[in-house]
Amino acid sequence: MASANAKSITRRDFLYRAAAVGGTGLLFNTMSAWGLGIASTAAAPPQLSGSGKGKKILILGAGLAGMTAAYELGKLGYAVQILEARSFAGGRCQTARKGFTLTELGGDAQTCGFDEGEYINHGPWRIPYHHQSTLHYTRQFGIALEVMVNDNDNSFVYLENGGPLSKQRLRPAQIKADMRGNVAELLAKTVQAKALDQELSSDDKHLLLDYLAHEGQLAASDLRYKGRSGRGYAINPGAGMVPGAGTPSDPLGFKDLLASKVGHVYSAVQDFPMQNTMFQPVGGMDQIARAFEKRVGKTIRYQAEVQSIRQNDKGVTVNWKDSASGKLASASADYCICTIPLSVLRTIDSDFSDSFKQAIASVAYAPVGKIGLQMKRRFWEEEDHIYGGHVLTDIKGINTISLPSAGWQKKKGVLLGYYHYQTAAIEISALTPAERVEFALAAGEKIFPAYRDSFESAFSVAWHRVRYNLGGWAEWSDKSRAKAYPLLNEGQGRVLLAGEHMSYLTGWQAGAIESAWQQIARIHERASA
Amino acid sequence: MASANAKSITRRDFLYRAAAVGGTGLLFNTMSAWGLGIASTAAAPPQLSGSGKGKKILILGAGLAGMTAAYELGKLGYAVQILEARSFAGGRCQTARKGFTLTELGGDAQTCGFDEGEYINHGPWRIPYHHQSTLHYTRQFGIALEVMVNDNDNSFVYLENGGPLSKQRLRPAQIKADMRGNVAELLAKTVQAKALDQELSSDDKHLLLDYLAHEGQLAASDLRYKGRSGRGYAINPGAGMVPGAGTPSDPLGFKDLLASKVGHVYSAVQDFPMQNTMFQPVGGMDQIARAFEKRVGKTIRYQAEVQSIRQNDKGVTVNWKDSASGKLASASADYCICTIPLSVLRTIDSDFSDSFKQAIASVAYAPVGKIGLQMKRRFWEEEDHIYGGHVLTDIKGINTISLPSAGWQKKKGVLLGYYHYQTAAIEISALTPAERVEFALAAGEKIFPAYRDSFESAFSVAWHRVRYNLGGWAEWSDKSRAKAYPLLNEGQGRVLLAGEHMSYLTGWQAGAIESAWQQIARIHERASA
Repeated sequence: MASANAKSITRRDFLYRAAAVGGTGLLFNTMSAWGLGIASTAAAPPQLSGSGKGKKILILGAGLAGMTAAYELGKLGYAVQILEARSFAGGRCQTARKGFTLTELGGDAQTCGFDEGEYINHGPWRIPYHHQSTLHYTRQFGIALEVMVNDNDNSFVYLENGGPLSKQRLRPAQIKADMRGNVAELLAKTVQAKALDQELSSDDKHLLLDYLAHEGQLAASDLRYKGRSGRGYAINPGAGMVPGAGTPSDPLGFKDLLASKVGHVYSAVQDFPMQNTMFQPVGGMDQIARAFEKRVGKTIRYQAEVQSIRQNDKGVTVNWKDSASGKLASASADYCICTIPLSVLRTIDSDFSDSFKQAIASVAYAPVGKIGLQMKRRFWEEEDHIYGGHVLTDIKGINTISLPSAGWQKKKGVLLGYYHYQTAAIEISALTPAERVEFALAAGEKIFPAYRDSFESAFSVAWHRVRYNLGGWAEWSDKSRAKAYPLLNEGQGRVLLAGEHMSYLTGWQAGAIESAWQQIARIHERASA
Repeated sequence: MASANAKSITRRDFLYRAAAVGGTGLLFNTMSAWGLGIASTAAAPPQLSGSGKGKKILILGAGLAGMTAAYELGKLGYAVQILEARSFAGGRCQTARKGFTLTELGGDAQTCGFDEGEYINHGPWRIPYHHQSTLHYTRQFGIALEVMVNDNDNSFVYLENGGPLSKQRLRPAQIKADMRGNVAELLAKTVQAKALDQELSSDDKHLLLDYLAHEGQLAASDLRYKGRSGRGYAINPGAGMVPGAGTPSDPLGFKDLLASKVGHVYSAVQDFPMQNTMFQPVGGMDQIARAFEKRVGKTIRYQAEVQSIRQNDKGVTVNWKDSASGKLASASADYCICTIPLSVLRTIDSDFSDSFKQAIASVAYAPVGKIGLQMKRRFWEEEDHIYGGHVLTDIKGINTISLPSAGWQKKKGVLLGYYHYQTAAIEISALTPAERVEFALAAGEKIFPAYRDSFESAFSVAWHRVRYNLGGWAEWSDKSRAKAYPLLNEGQGRVLLAGEHMSYLTGWQAGAIESAWQQIARIHERASA
């Protein structure tokens, strides 16, 4: 498989490889998906026959990749052991609620003080509908799902550097209606002026004008955009004579819209990973971790910090330290699945080859920070009629204020006060927990007058400062994808790597699960040989 | 107030009228809403002071308008009595579940045979975020809400008469990506060809090209549209080398898209009533009816069919018939709020003036039909990865197949097999319940191969054939809005009208509630005078 560029493989290549990797089950799924014109997606674990009885597999890390591997290999009869550095399972699949503690490297201890029933998913927080691998387990384990509102046209867009539209609470619905309305009008004008007669037949022109009038809701008489109900009303329609039909709102000016660059907050269609329908588990993302843990928990040795990884042609030996007692111990197995993030693995002593070590060290990890703010009152629902979704802003280090998609109309709620990456994440993570709160409140109150007064309690995380993660997710460059990724994907000897980093779904739980599915198929193939 | 055109009133007029109708509370809300640039909306019942003690109000109809009036007037101390023709409260706010019965006029009896826990909201089924009046009561009564997925880009569009794209299961995401991508490319080309130099400054051209490249995800090098991940993949990205980055999908041809007119299934922004976030009560829409009934049920006389309405300058007398026993009775009160649909009211004997009667008779009611189909398997989730939302089709009499927004990943589910109006509704309502099922299955299996085999049980309604409704909702023409609506809104003597028909939110529960709010304010003003 080596360094093939996955984007350029032919269909035949793909089918060949699908059969090689996943057996005929995967091949069949792939073909039937094509036949129906539906995107193929890894929707179920590999169908493996035979037995793993008498073979031992050591798994490093009880995140979703590790627990997926343990669960599926356990069903085949393998003797599985997981070493987990933390005192709980789930890896980054965490939910902060009352009593949850975190001490970042060099940071102050935080204990979550949210009210009973309130929480923030400070790790993964969304499950796209096409992440069928994650959804395979929510279904199989009976984990209740609810819609995560990832797209809300009635939310706010608030730009500090938005030119003529700076510091206004714009609604995405207004922006979409007015930008697309004006663009439709402009193109309609062009078509009518015969500027596109070389491009379009007379029939096409007629059809295009028809489409533009519909898309932009242009006036039938002159194909001009004059506002529309979809951008919202000044006074909403209601009963009786007043408000009666309501009062239309005035469109934003096209030149102001262009100059503000506010049209960049949306696009023709949502990016693939962000499309509706988006889910979250009822009660917190860690319901997934708990469901796995319930099934494989007895194989997990907690607070076991891996010290070194060694192998020979018979097996793998891992030395680890009990972080509570400080005692050293070791575990051996026929094969090892290592799900430790590369950011951490690079610091662990091993007998991997130099090129393998270099590949591990070549992968960057994303600095990422989030903060959950418990508000004593849902002012965003009560005053602004925003139910879930994201307030988008260019306030440095904030990016989004995301409103909860659960507990509708309840008294309190926990919102996401920022979600930042890279430089901003590094800068803000240097603040104390209390200073981070102040940073978030100072920004939020620019948008919501009730923000500061409603604040009760916070929990923040900077993933690049979390001991056993050292980053939010792997960030592959084109170069490391071409060079390091194929090498790491092969594993080394009896050690195979799994986790979100071993996928093109980095930062998503599906990447961890699907990567585990691939590696257990390989181990089983080798162990059965 | 008379026949003023609500759309053309000035802001000053509006404020004046708002104060006159709703008192200073409404005036304040309106002004502050303007100040913040948020659409005003009727969000709470009128703040009425004083007492209604010693005054009797007779309410005709225990739908949401009638029960809202009873609930709010009851709090003021009025003696309230409701006459309800049915044996249950809620009016059109109904949910069909196991055991629910319906016999349409001239039709066969239907008893819903869905499994325990399965249901269809065959009346109202959606609560838009801006229907703050409905949401006022769901919050006050503690009715749990969940998201109703009203917009799903991964659903299907299936056209029988879609020209070159006929009989294909297209995804809205594909259509949006490709239509808007091509339109963006076309306009970018025009801008580059200097065809718009008279319209746009050099800066504006630059900004517009920048926007178009983003909206259409055009290639940076040549501003051409070449597909995008947002339209979905041929093979989704995943783990390892295969599928790795996945395989992109090919865009639909622009001329095919134009010729198919498939771009009409979406628009720049969702129409105002259809925008996210959309809600439904957990467990069925009738949770709202039940919550009201719990509070005002003791004032309701069920199975009481109104026979006549008479008034003099002292009060109102209504003669009614117990539909179980056939016995006649009468009830008197100081004032009457009549929420009986105009389609039914026109058949009831009254001493209304001729012009008032003519106004009542001039309002058309919508023929509307729906069918719920219980499927033994959620093939739309399992095979097509469609979670909620609407499959849109031009198959005559179907319009939409809507997938349930609850019970995600459960075994069974009830989908909406059609939702039709006007001629189609009239034609299909002439079929027997079994024939309607066959009609729905024959259409659905064109889109979903598993449709017919998965079918278990159905419940259908044709609202224009439902005895106490005779239509889905009031359909005002421009003429009847101008002439009949103001007249009916005034009521006659001591009888005031309320219901969705007395609003610009026809067919929505909010129209019923807000109309009731307005009329109780008027009654209280008159009773207090």
